[in-house]
Amino acid sequence: MALIVQKFGGTSVGNTDRIKNVARRVAGYRAQGDQVVVVVSAMSGVTDGLIKLAKEITQLPSEREMDMLLATGEQTTIALTAMALHALDLPAVSLTGAQAGIVTDGVHSKAKIQNITPKRIHELLNAGNVVIVAGFQGQTTEGHITTLGRGGSDLTAIALAAALGADLCQIYTDVDGVYTADPRIVKTARKLPEVAYDEMLELASLGAKVMQSRSVEFAKKFGVVFEVRSSLNDNPGTIVKEETESMENVVIRGVTFDKNQAKVTLGAVPDHPGAASRIFKALAVLNLNVDMIVQTSSHGAGVKTTDISFTLDKPDLPKALITLQGLQKEIGFADLVADENIGKLSIVGVGMRSHSGVAAKMFETLAAHQINIDMISTSEIKISVVIELNRGEEALRVVHEAFLGT
Amino acid sequence: MALIVQKFGGTSVGNTDRIKNVARRVAGYRAQGDQVVVVVSAMSGVTDGLIKLAKEITQLPSEREMDMLLATGEQTTIALTAMALHALDLPAVSLTGAQAGIVTDGVHSKAKIQNITPKRIHELLNAGNVVIVAGFQGQTTEGHITTLGRGGSDLTAIALAAALGADLCQIYTDVDGVYTADPRIVKTARKLPEVAYDEMLELASLGAKVMQSRSVEFAKKFGVVFEVRSSLNDNPGTIVKEETESMENVVIRGVTFDKNQAKVTLGAVPDHPGAASRIFKALAVLNLNVDMIVQTSSHGAGVKTTDISFTLDKPDLPKALITLQGLQKEIGFADLVADENIGKLSIVGVGMRSHSGVAAKMFETLAAHQINIDMISTSEIKISVVIELNRGEEALRVVHEAFLGT
Repeated sequence: MALIVQKFGGTSVGNTDRIKNVARRVAGYRAQGDQVVVVVSAMSGVTDGLIKLAKEITQLPSEREMDMLLATGEQTTIALTAMALHALDLPAVSLTGAQAGIVTDGVHSKAKIQNITPKRIHELLNAGNVVIVAGFQGQTTEGHITTLGRGGSDLTAIALAAALGADLCQIYTDVDGVYTADPRIVKTARKLPEVAYDEMLELASLGAKVMQSRSVEFAKKFGVVFEVRSSLNDNPGTIVKEETESMENVVIRGVTFDKNQAKVTLGAVPDHPGAASRIFKALAVLNLNVDMIVQTSSHGAGVKTTDISFTLDKPDLPKALITLQGLQKEIGFADLVADENIGKLSIVGVGMRSHSGVAAKMFETLAAHQINIDMISTSEIKISVVIELNRGEEALRVVHEAFLGT
Repeated sequence: MALIVQKFGGTSVGNTDRIKNVARRVAGYRAQGDQVVVVVSAMSGVTDGLIKLAKEITQLPSEREMDMLLATGEQTTIALTAMALHALDLPAVSLTGAQAGIVTDGVHSKAKIQNITPKRIHELLNAGNVVIVAGFQGQTTEGHITTLGRGGSDLTAIALAAALGADLCQIYTDVDGVYTADPRIVKTARKLPEVAYDEMLELASLGAKVMQSRSVEFAKKFGVVFEVRSSLNDNPGTIVKEETESMENVVIRGVTFDKNQAKVTLGAVPDHPGAASRIFKALAVLNLNVDMIVQTSSHGAGVKTTDISFTLDKPDLPKALITLQGLQKEIGFADLVADENIGKLSIVGVGMRSHSGVAAKMFETLAAHQINIDMISTSEIKISVVIELNRGEEALRVVHEAFLGT
């Protein structure tokens, strides 16, 4: 008898028929004698509907009241899911985040889980119930309802798995698992049976939009093994867990291409101490997420200057440009160029640590196809290059072929 | 500075524009320096939408999970109302029933309020906030969410007014107050400036559908003075309070006609001890609400028999007839006749206690208009008669004219 935490997202509970499907799946595990805790999101569309109501009232709703409002979305789903289990003659009890003992800090709309008191869940499980917990929400020690921000339901599931000492945590989604590359672009892409937390983190932040980094970090911190799998079929998914020695035998776990990037270049920045810091501080204040940074010296006639390039998320570009234009006089750079016609190709794998020549092989492969590399950044288990946007899919295919075969 | 509890029903908060209207009204009281606690219902239509979702899942949803589901309706309204107050630069904090300290018993879907701990509300009021409380809901001491059943938001408002020691409790609705008769039928009907709890109870149970009896009973028990008034204008409403001496100077407070009644007659019931008890016990088990009962003896050839007639709510008639048909052999009555073509005319007033001849005047008035009386029942402050349904409006007018003038 295992204790399993299963999380179903908004699409998986998007209407009452899908909720009945979720109930049938849960019933299958119960029939094997497993104890099951189900974490659900709001039905797809519900949260947007609530946000629309709030915007009709005021353009700047208070975050505390937004949390009060949005928390109703998951509360609706837990009640309906419990009813669907009852209809299959399974005892089931729904719990809001607060009732499940999920205590957070007081940062409304993006609260952090501080601790979980799983006593009530254990009692209900031991009495034979399926326990259904509202994802995405908790309450402060003062009793205010909070929400955990984007990807919050995954976080609820993983945190509950940790607190309950669950044997398995399953994240049901609309993809079959984590692939070596986007299978819509690379026909030879394969589903990975397992992947290390650190690899999943790089993949998550690199545009393989399976899960938010935050949830993976939490799982890594508390050693929660979880499986990403589809709610549409019974195929095994991808297990995400601590790195093992055998994982290092594979040089590269996956290849990603992130189209959602833009590049900004400041030309001829006077080479004063603090110029770069002034620039990136101004962007940080606006919560603009700067990714790769490259600085190259260029010697003009009189003053020594440098060129500074960096990449950021494409939607953040207008804000960044306005901010930098405002700083032009103060810092004294010559020009400001934006390039939206780029993308970021990355290879990820813990095997890189023990294999040399990985970067060289990547660069050679791209060169052999006349794909120009604009910027490079590396971490211990990742190499990213900025290339031209419209060469992205080709680059993904050839690099996948070079490292992961056809 | 007064402490006022204001309750707004589903129609008054039916869309975001109406919620903004509620906020403006509350702001007006705040501007006078009053402390305000606002109790709101679910936006009209929301509860029905949730019930529909539940029915898509199962025809017999568990009452605990229905409470979990329906409680989201009021939670949505409190958050939006708080936002609307913020938009008027008024500090406001929303509280669910549980957060407001409303503790109930564990009878899901029709829980009774056991006690209220108003500490948190007082703290928030003293810090300058408008406090918005979700009506209709509470939680058990074990932390289960409960709902209070029909008219539950009125009950929340009155119970909070009692617990907070409020100076005034206002029930905003879509009528201007309590009238001497239905103004749509009796053109000369007048709004009553005040009415005694007991009169309001008789009027509530007699078809003047302003409030549920339960809320009025609660107000009477705890001496909560409340005002029924319109959310569509600023007219003063009707104050409901303990009976005063001056109230007795008015013989009749109001006249009502309830069209929603049906009469059942069992003919030639053998006059055995226990026959009547057997009949009404069978109906009570089904929660059928029998109102007036009349028994008349009729002497046949051999066995002594009686006729038994009673009235009940029209929608309950089919159930009652099926039950009684099943009992015909056992009890041995001769026939079973149903009459839906009746209604109940009632006059109500605490003044009846000190005035004689009230019943006689009512009967004379009806007789003068050839309106036949079928059944009669009386209480200390009420006289009801069953008459033909299609004479109801005429009867209402002539009796209103006789007692309350033109």
